[in-house]
Amino acid sequence: VLALIEIDCDGHCAGVRPDGAELLAIAVSLAAAGQLRGVLTYVGAAYDWFAERERRAVVTAAERLRAAGMPAPIVSVGSTPTAMFARDLTGVTEVRAGVYVFMDLVMVGLGVASLDDVALSVLTTVIGHQRDRGWLIVDAGWMALSRDRGTQAQANDRGFGLACDEHGTVIDGLIVVDTNQEHGVLARDRGAPVDCDRFPVGTRLRILPNHACATAGQHDTYQVVDGGNAVVARWPRFGGW
Amino acid sequence: VLALIEIDCDGHCAGVRPDGAELLAIAVSLAAAGQLRGVLTYVGAAYDWFAERERRAVVTAAERLRAAGMPAPIVSVGSTPTAMFARDLTGVTEVRAGVYVFMDLVMVGLGVASLDDVALSVLTTVIGHQRDRGWLIVDAGWMALSRDRGTQAQANDRGFGLACDEHGTVIDGLIVVDTNQEHGVLARDRGAPVDCDRFPVGTRLRILPNHACATAGQHDTYQVVDGGNAVVARWPRFGGW
Repeated sequence: VLALIEIDCDGHCAGVRPDGAELLAIAVSLAAAGQLRGVLTYVGAAYDWFAERERRAVVTAAERLRAAGMPAPIVSVGSTPTAMFARDLTGVTEVRAGVYVFMDLVMVGLGVASLDDVALSVLTTVIGHQRDRGWLIVDAGWMALSRDRGTQAQANDRGFGLACDEHGTVIDGLIVVDTNQEHGVLARDRGAPVDCDRFPVGTRLRILPNHACATAGQHDTYQVVDGGNAVVARWPRFGGW
Repeated sequence: VLALIEIDCDGHCAGVRPDGAELLAIAVSLAAAGQLRGVLTYVGAAYDWFAERERRAVVTAAERLRAAGMPAPIVSVGSTPTAMFARDLTGVTEVRAGVYVFMDLVMVGLGVASLDDVALSVLTTVIGHQRDRGWLIVDAGWMALSRDRGTQAQANDRGFGLACDEHGTVIDGLIVVDTNQEHGVLARDRGAPVDCDRFPVGTRLRILPNHACATAGQHDTYQVVDGGNAVVARWPRFGGW
């Protein structure tokens, strides 16, 4: 076993404080067993001053370990916003960026990516209309999209995802406003009714995800396309954590 | 292709009204193609009068089809509450009960099942403490538990799940109050601090799910136990919808 000590840089969840007594107590114990490899942290927030706070916490912890004569070759931080926004990564040896691979609507809302950068979507089919409500019903519910509502607190609330035509062109303002287990309900984000005749039953749409991790986690395989709609490869999804 | 027509019994999502003109228009078309097999509906709510409303909608639709000379051998309703609460299923040929297999905290909250009936849990390990907040940190976040918050509107809000010891005995009032992707935060549901010394790092706990479908959907295999903690079988989870 080779161990990293998790550092709490934002008081949000797990880890020990970079300036607290627990850090050295744990480090002494791991070092005595020959298992200490360094420190890691994660900050979920997405502003440049968070990236700096994250860096400072983990570098401080690493320096305390080294000053006490213990090894800290690995100094590891999150995340996609850190990777995009950090101005200074001095002392950091690893950035664990995940969403970075696909991007998603949360990252678009944070200004980390543009809609064109989002490389993951759920292909779905219109299976019904509720014309008096201006709704399209599709065959992708939260089992396909996840329940992630990460854009809820952002300026552009995308519901459970933003609709594109099957070629990936965004249909402005058409979002998944509600889901149940196997169905999604699409409507306009400003409440205007959808023209159901424009989207007959059988129409295929792509839904861009709020959170790529959560949506990918609902599926066991990536259907890879390269410009068109032909599936050119199938990649199994890595699981376990 | 053999088709059932979905009936809207509660105005909630998909389907056509049992007394509307669309039902017969669709039926004529399917019958002409030799594909019409009957009708189905689903009501998510869980009270006996909903079960009766569901039955009445779908039986009414089937009778209209038959009166028009079309076949309706299948008359299908949901759900687990329907299966438990319905007093009269006259005219119904199928009840599609899913959660029924495992039960969950939502069903317990509705009085459909008792805690002892819940046969699905997520085994997790205490990996840290935040003593000043009275928190336990476990290695099951929403990737393991799902984001389902189905008990939120019930009298007993169970957060993201209710904790048991590893043998399945409920630890009264200890719930998952928060999750991120890979971590869960456990605390008392009434805000009292957790005695962290009672749950040292390495302690194994079982989390009962709010919604069995959503939680099972986060995993690809069931680890089957039979009274003890030894895994006596591994069952792959059925996927696709």
